[in-house]
Amino acid sequence: MTRQLEHSQIVPQLLARTRDLVEPALRAAIGTLADDRMRLIASYQMGWCDAEGNPTEPGGKAIRPALAILSAEAAIGTSRFGLPAAVAVELVHNFSLLHDDVMDRDLERRHRPTGWLVFGDGDAILAGNAMLTLAMQVLDETGIEGRRSLPHILNATQLLISGQSRDLWLEGRDGVSLQEVLDMEAGKTAALLACATSVGALAAGAPDTTVRALERFGHELGIAFQLVDDVLGVVGDPARTGKSSSSDVRAGKRSAPIVAALTSDTPAGRQLAEMFAAGRHEDEDDVILATGLIKESGGLDWAIQEAEARLTRALDELAGHGLAEPAVSELAAVAAYIVDRDR
Amino acid sequence: MTRQLEHSQIVPQLLARTRDLVEPALRAAIGTLADDRMRLIASYQMGWCDAEGNPTEPGGKAIRPALAILSAEAAIGTSRFGLPAAVAVELVHNFSLLHDDVMDRDLERRHRPTGWLVFGDGDAILAGNAMLTLAMQVLDETGIEGRRSLPHILNATQLLISGQSRDLWLEGRDGVSLQEVLDMEAGKTAALLACATSVGALAAGAPDTTVRALERFGHELGIAFQLVDDVLGVVGDPARTGKSSSSDVRAGKRSAPIVAALTSDTPAGRQLAEMFAAGRHEDEDDVILATGLIKESGGLDWAIQEAEARLTRALDELAGHGLAEPAVSELAAVAAYIVDRDR
Repeated sequence: MTRQLEHSQIVPQLLARTRDLVEPALRAAIGTLADDRMRLIASYQMGWCDAEGNPTEPGGKAIRPALAILSAEAAIGTSRFGLPAAVAVELVHNFSLLHDDVMDRDLERRHRPTGWLVFGDGDAILAGNAMLTLAMQVLDETGIEGRRSLPHILNATQLLISGQSRDLWLEGRDGVSLQEVLDMEAGKTAALLACATSVGALAAGAPDTTVRALERFGHELGIAFQLVDDVLGVVGDPARTGKSSSSDVRAGKRSAPIVAALTSDTPAGRQLAEMFAAGRHEDEDDVILATGLIKESGGLDWAIQEAEARLTRALDELAGHGLAEPAVSELAAVAAYIVDRDR
Repeated sequence: MTRQLEHSQIVPQLLARTRDLVEPALRAAIGTLADDRMRLIASYQMGWCDAEGNPTEPGGKAIRPALAILSAEAAIGTSRFGLPAAVAVELVHNFSLLHDDVMDRDLERRHRPTGWLVFGDGDAILAGNAMLTLAMQVLDETGIEGRRSLPHILNATQLLISGQSRDLWLEGRDGVSLQEVLDMEAGKTAALLACATSVGALAAGAPDTTVRALERFGHELGIAFQLVDDVLGVVGDPARTGKSSSSDVRAGKRSAPIVAALTSDTPAGRQLAEMFAAGRHEDEDDVILATGLIKESGGLDWAIQEAEARLTRALDELAGHGLAEPAVSELAAVAAYIVDRDR
């Protein structure tokens, strides 16, 4: 309660500050895309314009660039070195969103139709490619801090790609273990978060032990982040998440709370397994029934508790590396904010 | 005739030599992909294994890495500096093939089912992403020659992406001009060819004027290459091209010979335009009829003559920059070989 009250005051201001730092650089980068259509789709994906290119109020919390900036500030007390990496991480994140929405056939993202729905599969894929390539161009063109960040971000991108491939593989599959899901989520979400929380420090030339501690912080936070996302994918309020309700149930996803339910060895878990084995998860009635069973079997509670445990582990990593205030407290506040969002 | 006889002897040996140089490095790079499935799909795409991972006889001519190696040899007499760029260019090329086949719904590539058909859309897209990211990792990890090549290859990748987007946009569209098609082909094919023919010289630190001449050589060659590809997309022998016959007609592509026919102001061209406007290009009888009209209207002849003219321009660029023998003659031989292939 106290925690929630505290970060609900600090974090929005903080995100506004880092956004003011990063967004002009991000807009400048996307502005260098020579192809009109790629630039339009990238701008739409960033939430800066509608499908015709008319300016809109930007959505999205821009958590990853904020973390990149804060990690530079925590490591050497200045944000400057984290800026190119913040831009690149946000571009890589949006590349993966554009592509994942095509693969997952998701219809809505940040309260708007997804890129493929508006611009077609081909151009959504291509604009994702353009954003990934642009991320590398930004780093390649920006002094030593950019070049130091490049291998770090390329590595995280490979992990992200593998995680999405595992996610597709798990979809609709029977007999999936919770460990398989957590391994997949480590790639799909934690890898880029761990990159975001450490790349600023790395770019600034911070000691290796500091970079690694920030990386572990981001990794644990990333798992917590995904677990909360998974919970929202089952019981999230569409008006707040910007996605349709119970979308993961409907899609037959094997997210952590769903697999926790399936492997819970409870009557509700067994009933859920029977429904899924019979392919019953798409009709509205079945979706409501399945959602109830995921709750009843303890799948949701497990995911919430695990997210809390991961957050605690994450915060523990921040101690003992001489990280500078206020950035280190701000990193902690953003972490708590992420885990408490929309609950 | 003499030309054809000459390069038909030289070029296969030459490509075998550059393949022996590049393939071990390419295999080593793909071997670093930690994800089993991404590594399998990349290896399949390269023609090294079947869908289960059993080794197969490699297909594909590996023209682009050969050009990258030759451009280093022509500029400074040694291939070493071209090697990371050769690997990266071939990875970028195969990334684009994997993705283009998804978007174009092509069924066959190099006499085998396309990646998406074997592994699904999602994993084909992801493996393409992994190959693009790997290309950048190879360059980032390889000394000064890699880092010099990086911006050049990133820039070519953006042009490639734009070209494919234009190609999708032109598909099935009425009133397309020949200039629009040539502009699209400059991005889709010529950009990466121009990168391949110059990046070795660039990586080796050759003078800017030399790099630019080799780039213009590659650009003209790339247009010629695509025009020949377009001709084969209308009248190619499936047994030799590894694609289905008249595939571009069936797909409603706006390739250069097709648009040359449509804009030819001939009776055959007008009849073709009427067929296309009525959506008649998919039935077997209509495909045969349309193919005949493309020939009759002079569309194919135009493309063949334009390819020859571009080849002549390309070869002219090789003179007067003190490029070293035998590499400069070998570049010329590869260029002629590309334009004469399968005819």
